[in-house]
Amino acid sequence: MSNSIQIPDNFAICQAADRITNYINKTPVFTNSAINKILDANLFFKCENFQKVGAFKFRGATNAVFSLNDSELEFGVATHSSGNHAQALALAAKNRGIKANIVMPEDSSKVKIAAVKEYGGNIIFCKPTLAAREETLKTVIQETNSVEIHPYDNYKIIAGQATATKELIEEIDNLDIIIAPVGGGGLLSGTALATHYFSPKTKVYAAEPITANDAFLSFYSKKFIPSINPQTIADGLRTSLGELTYPIILQHVHEVFTCSEQKIIEAMKLVWERMKIIIEPSSAVALAILFENNIDIKGKRIGIIISGGNVDLMDLPWMNKK
Amino acid sequence: MSNSIQIPDNFAICQAADRITNYINKTPVFTNSAINKILDANLFFKCENFQKVGAFKFRGATNAVFSLNDSELEFGVATHSSGNHAQALALAAKNRGIKANIVMPEDSSKVKIAAVKEYGGNIIFCKPTLAAREETLKTVIQETNSVEIHPYDNYKIIAGQATATKELIEEIDNLDIIIAPVGGGGLLSGTALATHYFSPKTKVYAAEPITANDAFLSFYSKKFIPSINPQTIADGLRTSLGELTYPIILQHVHEVFTCSEQKIIEAMKLVWERMKIIIEPSSAVALAILFENNIDIKGKRIGIIISGGNVDLMDLPWMNKK
Repeated sequence: MSNSIQIPDNFAICQAADRITNYINKTPVFTNSAINKILDANLFFKCENFQKVGAFKFRGATNAVFSLNDSELEFGVATHSSGNHAQALALAAKNRGIKANIVMPEDSSKVKIAAVKEYGGNIIFCKPTLAAREETLKTVIQETNSVEIHPYDNYKIIAGQATATKELIEEIDNLDIIIAPVGGGGLLSGTALATHYFSPKTKVYAAEPITANDAFLSFYSKKFIPSINPQTIADGLRTSLGELTYPIILQHVHEVFTCSEQKIIEAMKLVWERMKIIIEPSSAVALAILFENNIDIKGKRIGIIISGGNVDLMDLPWMNKK
Repeated sequence: MSNSIQIPDNFAICQAADRITNYINKTPVFTNSAINKILDANLFFKCENFQKVGAFKFRGATNAVFSLNDSELEFGVATHSSGNHAQALALAAKNRGIKANIVMPEDSSKVKIAAVKEYGGNIIFCKPTLAAREETLKTVIQETNSVEIHPYDNYKIIAGQATATKELIEEIDNLDIIIAPVGGGGLLSGTALATHYFSPKTKVYAAEPITANDAFLSFYSKKFIPSINPQTIADGLRTSLGELTYPIILQHVHEVFTCSEQKIIEAMKLVWERMKIIIEPSSAVALAILFENNIDIKGKRIGIIISGGNVDLMDLPWMNKK
């Protein structure tokens, strides 16, 4: 796999952008005067909720799948995921005309199972534990000879996710800050690399739920500290940083900020109400940190990466649970 | 009031577009491959849910307010409205630096009352009946000398609403059909006029809830038949056609289609899930008619006017009511 054993350079990110351009949506950048007024800043929302499969994950999956050559892909690709990466990899594989084996926990949401099936993914169910997921994936790969595409700890994935920020920087100049949420760190490390190469004066802030603050702890202690079974509504951010993403984040991210569950819900509802767009809780975290931390943003130009819009419309966090 | 006593011609619509351009959002046109696949057609959604105040109403209100001269506006403007027109007129008046007296039924939603206040509107509450609304407005106008801006039966309002379709036609060529929902008919008559002038080969279809089918009945019987207290989730479409809008609709609309409440909810949820945008029930009607009528749309290019996105996020129609 050419190029996939080193941290993506600017050329690798440009290559990724070219490689995926015919498959992805070039998502719009939205602004909202009401939210700008509340925060006394200029926010530019890069809307990956409008990406295919409803999340930025499709960029990385497409780059990873289309980076491999025909012989490498003879037996298809495989991953374990209960979320957006499962759908993203299934659709990327479909576009490439290859098979995708997706290990999913048996308690995955029906909507997500249906979506993976719709994209032609071959689902293998397992018990809902990380151990079972990894064990099942290992077996599937041994039996099928398919290539594992890790959801974030893969340089091709990181380069693909970086293209969202590349587009944002090309469209909006002179950003002072770019904020991305952090779970496994694929999006954040891609964001940080793209910013470093294409807009080096812009600061990169990471946004994380305080109840899943492994990135915060690992970043400031400079010691890898994983989250143990974190509880947060931002289901995309429960994962801990990876071996490949952590060093990139340490080097190229400027600050990590956390926020409470309540602020995540409030920020999510604010975006729905004011911007009329559907964003998932993980996306709201990037806005929520601005309401809970004493960050100097007055008059500044701030890019916010809206990571996705896949939510269960039957179970919204602001509805009274009775 | 120059130009306001005759049906808007193409020049009047171009004038309206110029007049409001610095105040409104030029809203985007969205497409969605999943919905296109389901319907086997090419749909282009003109997203007025992203308009200021969250609805197309701001176009007409802005055109009406900025068409009047300083002496006409000395004592401000007035209307009665429980919905989007109230907010639209309040903000348009604020932008013009004049007063807006808004008569609102006392059972209006708190969100809408707060929005009108935020835009600086002077709210006068009344009993929640049409008679009380009209009587109160009459008194307010007598006492304040303000100018009434009717929500739809006003040619400046109609010309303003027409600009949404003008923009759509300028961006997307060769549309076979344009569909707009119909309540009082301000949006629909504007849509029909703009299509007639700027894309005369395109057919205009009206979309209406079957439980509020006054436009359907009036259109095909060629006799004005108002709705009496219609019950529909599409709260923007409960109004009957007006004296000015009805003749334009009779002349320039090609067909009127109705649909059930169930299909409105399904279409609304489909758009939220697939397009990740928030649309109100009234907007969903324009899509819903395609699921319930045997309309020849195969392979056709269809513009859908998404009228707005103001919904109560605490009370969504697909949630189980217990």
